[in-house]
Amino acid sequence: MRDLSRDKSLLAINSATVKPWTLEQLVEGCARSGITGIAPWRDIVQAVGIEKAGRMIRAAGLTVTCLCRGGMFPAADAAGRRAALDDNRRAVDEAAGIGARSLVLIAGGLPKGSKDLAGAHEQVRDGLAALLPYARDAGVPLAIEPLHPMYAADRACVNTLAHANDLCDELGEGMGVAVDAYHVWWDPDLPRQIERAGSRILTYHVCDWLVPTRDLLLDRGMPGDGVIDLPGLRRMVEATGYDGHIDVEIFSAENWWKREPGEVLRICVERHQTVV
Amino acid sequence: MRDLSRDKSLLAINSATVKPWTLEQLVEGCARSGITGIAPWRDIVQAVGIEKAGRMIRAAGLTVTCLCRGGMFPAADAAGRRAALDDNRRAVDEAAGIGARSLVLIAGGLPKGSKDLAGAHEQVRDGLAALLPYARDAGVPLAIEPLHPMYAADRACVNTLAHANDLCDELGEGMGVAVDAYHVWWDPDLPRQIERAGSRILTYHVCDWLVPTRDLLLDRGMPGDGVIDLPGLRRMVEATGYDGHIDVEIFSAENWWKREPGEVLRICVERHQTVV
Repeated sequence: MRDLSRDKSLLAINSATVKPWTLEQLVEGCARSGITGIAPWRDIVQAVGIEKAGRMIRAAGLTVTCLCRGGMFPAADAAGRRAALDDNRRAVDEAAGIGARSLVLIAGGLPKGSKDLAGAHEQVRDGLAALLPYARDAGVPLAIEPLHPMYAADRACVNTLAHANDLCDELGEGMGVAVDAYHVWWDPDLPRQIERAGSRILTYHVCDWLVPTRDLLLDRGMPGDGVIDLPGLRRMVEATGYDGHIDVEIFSAENWWKREPGEVLRICVERHQTVV
Repeated sequence: MRDLSRDKSLLAINSATVKPWTLEQLVEGCARSGITGIAPWRDIVQAVGIEKAGRMIRAAGLTVTCLCRGGMFPAADAAGRRAALDDNRRAVDEAAGIGARSLVLIAGGLPKGSKDLAGAHEQVRDGLAALLPYARDAGVPLAIEPLHPMYAADRACVNTLAHANDLCDELGEGMGVAVDAYHVWWDPDLPRQIERAGSRILTYHVCDWLVPTRDLLLDRGMPGDGVIDLPGLRRMVEATGYDGHIDVEIFSAENWWKREPGEVLRICVERHQTVV
């Protein structure tokens, strides 16, 4: 029999899942529900300020599994790349300030007007390399998150765990990966790449792939409502030694974002204990 | 300077691009425009019957680059798998009857209610293996077409050229691949996998990835309107020795399917000569 209390202790709520909530509401909602981890996006941290956010989270005794998100490195010119690097340094500061265990980064896509995918890959590598010393000094591990290939053009041109692992191999200490079931579940190479990632898996996210999927970005499912073998994927991730939280992160404009966030939280807890 | 007349001689029109047209209209439209190749879907061939379709195509002197499409192997039970195999044998007959240079196959997705991706992969391999002797006897090469990973659940669970190449390695003579720019452009492993595919590339399809993409299935772009480096991809494909037609295949419910097909054809010719 599964140890449900242990299960619940590993649930973390990503702020994107309860989008209408402020950081304060997220912290209080998790406390009320016995949830021990959160994964905030930068907007709700910035809205209250880093210091206050940090105090609020520490007072509630919550683990911050990761801060979402930095990255978006490729740009059309040097000024754009510098601006991205500056913004990513601020994201590192925010992550350090709230005690986040990692900063999630997505690669960014093709610069406007560009069709040079290999060039964008290089810009991502160079951007990560430029950010890494700053993140190491701040004690914030960087988690590059491969996004589903349908985001390659406009959001992230690192689309497989293999590519993310290659970047970790190249860049070394302080670089890890974020594994999100939604983005990687389809990959026939996944078992091998999860094993290869090993201790570099810094954070593990779940939602579900709905059939049909009505929108490329905002139609993700509650765990259990789609086709991803989440228990199988979790077994693979935990077989590497990963024993951190499991973040539920759902973008869902037409369904979950329209519901009362407390109710969404209740269903996350239930699904976490039964199907994740 | 590019040899435009040569270019035009390598353009083929996929019937999905001019969806309102019958086979007769497609054949006449291509003849009028000096287009030498077509890639019909099965529906328009079946509508006139294989024999008549073959006569019509031969009389016009058109190359049939491929017949689209068979496949869809995974099913919830043995009866479903047998039905798929029967249908695929009919597709082989149709391809032979119209002199198609290959039969394009897409894998099929997860059977209804299943979350067993590895099991679906096995069913695809087994289905291909069962079909292959029949196709060899008929002299019809089978072209497994990796589809974009966003179709893994409901349409095709072979989503990388690496996976398609693995299937070719395993199944041998008579198995090849269809490379469609739309489905594979994002893959960082693509240059290596195209080289590996080599002479097993049986047909090459193009359209473009639009930003934004508003629908997972029916919002593909005319070559040149999106972000894919089509000349670069073509160079890679042709470097393998591929000297066949380039099929323009566009699913576009809200744009190209609403335009007059003759006009669509004219734009395909123009784009083929300038951006493909």
